Amino acid sequence: MTSRDKILSLFRTHPDQYLSGQEISRLLNISRAAVWKQVKALRQLGFEIEAKHSQGYRLLAAPDLLLAAEIENGLNCQYIGQSVISLSETDSTNVQARRLAEEGVLEGTVVVADRQSAGRGRLGRRWESPSGVNLYCSILLRPKIPVQQAPQLTFLSAVAVAETLNKICQLSAKVKWPNDIVVNGAKISGLLNEMSAETEQIHFVILGIGVNLNMLEDQFPDKLKYPATSAFLETGKLVNRLIFLQEFLQCLDKYYSEFLREGFVPIRRRWENLCNMMNMQVEVDQGSGNLCGTVVGLDAEGALRVQLDNGQIERILAGDVSPVSKVNQELN
Amino acid sequence: MTSRDKILSLFRTHPDQYLSGQEISRLLNISRAAVWKQVKALRQLGFEIEAKHSQGYRLLAAPDLLLAAEIENGLNCQYIGQSVISLSETDSTNVQARRLAEEGVLEGTVVVADRQSAGRGRLGRRWESPSGVNLYCSILLRPKIPVQQAPQLTFLSAVAVAETLNKICQLSAKVKWPNDIVVNGAKISGLLNEMSAETEQIHFVILGIGVNLNMLEDQFPDKLKYPATSAFLETGKLVNRLIFLQEFLQCLDKYYSEFLREGFVPIRRRWENLCNMMNMQVEVDQGSGNLCGTVVGLDAEGALRVQLDNGQIERILAGDVSPVSKVNQELN
Repeated sequence: MTSRDKILSLFRTHPDQYLSGQEISRLLNISRAAVWKQVKALRQLGFEIEAKHSQGYRLLAAPDLLLAAEIENGLNCQYIGQSVISLSETDSTNVQARRLAEEGVLEGTVVVADRQSAGRGRLGRRWESPSGVNLYCSILLRPKIPVQQAPQLTFLSAVAVAETLNKICQLSAKVKWPNDIVVNGAKISGLLNEMSAETEQIHFVILGIGVNLNMLEDQFPDKLKYPATSAFLETGKLVNRLIFLQEFLQCLDKYYSEFLREGFVPIRRRWENLCNMMNMQVEVDQGSGNLCGTVVGLDAEGALRVQLDNGQIERILAGDVSPVSKVNQELN
Repeated sequence: MTSRDKILSLFRTHPDQYLSGQEISRLLNISRAAVWKQVKALRQLGFEIEAKHSQGYRLLAAPDLLLAAEIENGLNCQYIGQSVISLSETDSTNVQARRLAEEGVLEGTVVVADRQSAGRGRLGRRWESPSGVNLYCSILLRPKIPVQQAPQLTFLSAVAVAETLNKICQLSAKVKWPNDIVVNGAKISGLLNEMSAETEQIHFVILGIGVNLNMLEDQFPDKLKYPATSAFLETGKLVNRLIFLQEFLQCLDKYYSEFLREGFVPIRRRWENLCNMMNMQVEVDQGSGNLCGTVVGLDAEGALRVQLDNGQIERILAGDVSPVSKVNQELN
């Protein structure tokens, strides 16, 4: 933790209290000049810090920044967030998390960035990552599960994102197979989970998460393959990124603990309840050809179960799934 | 390719023929002094090269080295061995292959080493890798298959190793779930396959293969968790490593092509036919507890199918499987 983070942490653990420069200087073992320098830096970052003669400093208000100390403060997690790395800018939080994972950092390490210069979506697509508005974070896990079960974690993180959106932003977010979260048919969040493994052992899994929180219409690229939205565009209300991230990490931790204890079944049920196309007629484009049927659920491998007209169940492991439009249905 | 490799390649493509220094110099665009220097280097490596006045150089015999040009020469593969990297010593061929994979080298690249200073077996165990006697190699693949199917490649490489041992060394090698090859109950080869993937896309798979070919008894470590052997210890005959490797790569290529064309079913059948415990009573140690039953096959996820006494089939994704000894069986 930097001195700046430590001072913030002191303010957080002493809410509404004045802390004298002398006290801070003693507790952090830095000079009083250094304390003053950090207070000045925090003010420049947008923190409102009152300085009262003979009493000391007091935190009045914090801006919507994603600072490690702020994120860690008050988190009550078993696995996730023991260590938080917050970057003002990086290429991609997944790339940084992978690098840290290879260096051997702890399970539960979170990498978050205000801005990504090379944010990536699925299949190598670009993920638009402007500064100050959205959430870009990656979480490192080292689950002791068979390699074949690693894809289950994608569905776990999708459920946690959707539930956090619904709780914090009062949305009706749904999950879209395999790794999107949508609101009214438009993409609001995407997951890019990565894994390094050997035959019998997972080295690590990185859950990469991008959520469009306060992004404005003109910040989306002109040409989008799928319609996209943000929480602000849907509700007209700004989302506090810090509150959102903390809630999300707690939710993720809760489901990850449950997953390690009870397996995939509870998550699968939750995912099916949140699925945007459950019991709907869909068309699946598998590259080699199309297939029509009704979505009936998810299986243990993470395949989408689609029932054909003849009753047979097809397991979809890869492909683009889209609802059959009403017009087409009427024509059939 | 180095000049040395190019000269070797010329000899290989002109078997039993004399090649004049002038001709070699012209074909490779190097000086005659350089040709002579390389011929000298090849002789030092153990190649027997005849030099005849006014006729030139002729290759009489090659030592059992694993040189890239020698390995590539005559290989007839669709996917594997387009590029071969041969190292006299490295930490681990898997580590090198992973590094190359991340740099973006072609599918089918083969990394082979005469000696590994940090050879690894499954679950981080050490893999004894002395010089001059065994085969240590890693093959990079980039299959366009769902992540969930990647473990199938372990069984594919196991079948290729066992069949190559049986063909070249006239052994009766069997495959042992999940990733060993055994002869008369002793381990002769181990596989360490690694993968880097995201939710919907495999970045790469590395097939890591160690085969004990000419290793002598005193080269094995004193304390071995499982009995181990080599082809030489089983047959009393030295194995030519180059011939073995080429045969193995061709076999692997054949099955990999078939796998991409027809899926896992043919490999699964071959693996079951070679399985050392098929239809046997076994005990499975799953860490959390033991389980007894009869091995009845392999499933599409790579799980071992074990039938319990009540007829129920258990799918084993992780664990140590060992035959129930005869004494125990009689006691039951």
